[in-house]
Amino acid sequence: FPSKQAHVQTTIFTKMSQLALDEGALNLSQGFPGFDCSEELQELLKFYSKGHNQYAPMAGVPALRNSIAAKTRAFYGIDLDANSEVTVVSGATEALFAAIHCCVFPGDEVIMFDPAYDAYDPIVRLAGGVPVHIQLKASEGFRIDWAELARKISPKTRAIMVNTPHNPTGSVWAMEDLDAFAEIVKGTNILIVSDEVYEHIVFDGAQHASVLLHPELRKRSFVCGSFGKTYHITGWKMGYCLAPEYLTSEFRKLHQWVTFSSATPLQYALADYLKEPAHYLGLSDFYQKKRDLFAAQFAGSRWKVLPSAGSFFQCLDYSGITDEADVDLAVRLTKELKVASIPVSVFYETPPTDRILRFCFAKNDDMLQEAAHRLAQL
Amino acid sequence: FPSKQAHVQTTIFTKMSQLALDEGALNLSQGFPGFDCSEELQELLKFYSKGHNQYAPMAGVPALRNSIAAKTRAFYGIDLDANSEVTVVSGATEALFAAIHCCVFPGDEVIMFDPAYDAYDPIVRLAGGVPVHIQLKASEGFRIDWAELARKISPKTRAIMVNTPHNPTGSVWAMEDLDAFAEIVKGTNILIVSDEVYEHIVFDGAQHASVLLHPELRKRSFVCGSFGKTYHITGWKMGYCLAPEYLTSEFRKLHQWVTFSSATPLQYALADYLKEPAHYLGLSDFYQKKRDLFAAQFAGSRWKVLPSAGSFFQCLDYSGITDEADVDLAVRLTKELKVASIPVSVFYETPPTDRILRFCFAKNDDMLQEAAHRLAQL
Ligand SMILES: CSCCC(=O)C(=O)O
Ligand SMILES: CSCCC(=O)C(=O)O
Repeated sequence: FPSKQAHVQTTIFTKMSQLALDEGALNLSQGFPGFDCSEELQELLKFYSKGHNQYAPMAGVPALRNSIAAKTRAFYGIDLDANSEVTVVSGATEALFAAIHCCVFPGDEVIMFDPAYDAYDPIVRLAGGVPVHIQLKASEGFRIDWAELARKISPKTRAIMVNTPHNPTGSVWAMEDLDAFAEIVKGTNILIVSDEVYEHIVFDGAQHASVLLHPELRKRSFVCGSFGKTYHITGWKMGYCLAPEYLTSEFRKLHQWVTFSSATPLQYALADYLKEPAHYLGLSDFYQKKRDLFAAQFAGSRWKVLPSAGSFFQCLDYSGITDEADVDLAVRLTKELKVASIPVSVFYETPPTDRILRFCFAKNDDMLQEAAHRLAQL
Repeated sequence: FPSKQAHVQTTIFTKMSQLALDEGALNLSQGFPGFDCSEELQELLKFYSKGHNQYAPMAGVPALRNSIAAKTRAFYGIDLDANSEVTVVSGATEALFAAIHCCVFPGDEVIMFDPAYDAYDPIVRLAGGVPVHIQLKASEGFRIDWAELARKISPKTRAIMVNTPHNPTGSVWAMEDLDAFAEIVKGTNILIVSDEVYEHIVFDGAQHASVLLHPELRKRSFVCGSFGKTYHITGWKMGYCLAPEYLTSEFRKLHQWVTFSSATPLQYALADYLKEPAHYLGLSDFYQKKRDLFAAQFAGSRWKVLPSAGSFFQCLDYSGITDEADVDLAVRLTKELKVASIPVSVFYETPPTDRILRFCFAKNDDMLQEAAHRLAQL
């Protein structure tokens, strides 16, 4: 039986979480909170477990689409039409999948920046598209060289993947990046698939530079969002796609064949929960404390702490410790120190020279301290 | 912006459910129960709303995969390996999508029988495949002409879609159909994607003829199942795919990019709920009573009641009443009689001569009687 994805393996997240489980290791690999969502949200789910168990409308229940639009207005000052520009899907992964599949034709090029979230490349290939990778460097703060991007654009470029705050590096775009990017795509037909699932986790007082904020970008963007990272419910697999009507209509045509609709009781619970800005406004502070707690333990160690400006990930450069491949080191540390991480090289098409492991700090403080303590000894 | 699905519209289910809502009509169109799931299942969801809110493993939580394997053993006498042959997904739609996309290469042919569930054809096309339609006829009880199927098979045939009990017609395969089908695919590399979401709704004492029961079929099949129809939770969007290990591994490679994993609290609730056979063993009787109640009202009317041997759908032939197109009639009846149905012609590639509307009888008895009463006057 010929494989359509012969070189594709199980995602690194599945592998490392499984290894962490097998080894009884502290699991700082896969990105999910080590604590539960709020009791208030649990109560809402309990409430809606009665009488809300049949198909939701394909685009999402109106109450949730309205809440998403209201939140977008409150947080970004952007008005979206809940009917024609907001679609609820089964997690940001489905949003990425449907956005890419609804616009990428066989042979189309899609530009992405490495390290790139591991789903982008295979999703583009499954659509018959051709991923075009641009490598970013830790020594340059993973910043994009706009001139290089301009050179990579060809008549076949259908879309560019954006991801800010960035997974796995924790780098973020500034508002000026939106301008620089807009200069490049202006006057072209290039679309944007923007993965902004960490929109509410941005540190040191910075503002999240959503592509929604720039009209030249917004008019050509699928913005893929998630409730998982914001409300500590990665297991609910609820996300959404924000896009202008002409893109949303294509997106929904895909979505209706991929999952058709998403879990009704979860949608109703979120529709209520989203109404309270306090449920997301404190998130950056919450995670900044955890970032600082974790990073502080490495002072004086041989690890180099890279900047983390957003997301709940901390990258550590281990080149001062060993020249092992990161894939091997991640496995060894899981087995020997019982601390699991993600090797960043798997997010590159061409092997990088950077030697980095990614650690998720969405964990209880005790666990963060213990993990850092074990690692810092190296 | 060029559309990848220029001729694809919003699904008929979305359209008719929306029209029913707008018109305040009795909604017998989209297939979902007009009543809630059991309180026991609601209680399980409440219980698992605490502490089960982060990512499930990509293939599904082991407890649920084990429950599915145990149920398959109890009901079919078939042993599946919960680790390598069972995958939990976000509804049967995702199961169909991932099964087709993981095996269909551009240019491959996929055979399907019309009327065919509306997702099959576009999913095959999105994978670059070529749908090959075989038309079934009401006058022949929608039975498959096996010689015709054999003639349609070509060197390019990658897969054949099976759907029993059948949506929209309510026809079912007998055990002999499995043998006839096996004779045809034996010795080929043809795969089977079998949509068996109505496995527990089979009438008049018949047994569901799952492809799992025939080794020649089972070894090449993706069996797509759903909890929605069996436990009155279409809105949970929880389903699964059963397939031999060599197919499951390809299926999971697709699933991990489409949704990655499915809602954790819902999975845990189902893992417990599946353990009690009483939760599905009475379902055929339950729905047979509704079928009979609904159908009885048409005695002496100008509607012709077609056989419904499984599923929760009743097809009615209206050729004795009007020669309107079914699409027009369905809209007119929704507006004038306030009864919504599904026009069956939308499930055909080539327009059929049969004149049929499909009615969902998964509704409270009062509503069924009132709807039938209105219709029977025509
Ligand atoms: C979908 S599992 C991966 C979770 C995640 O986003 C990450 O760990 O990067
Ligand atoms: C996914 S919505 C369609 C529900 C259904 O299976 C039907 O009405 O046939």
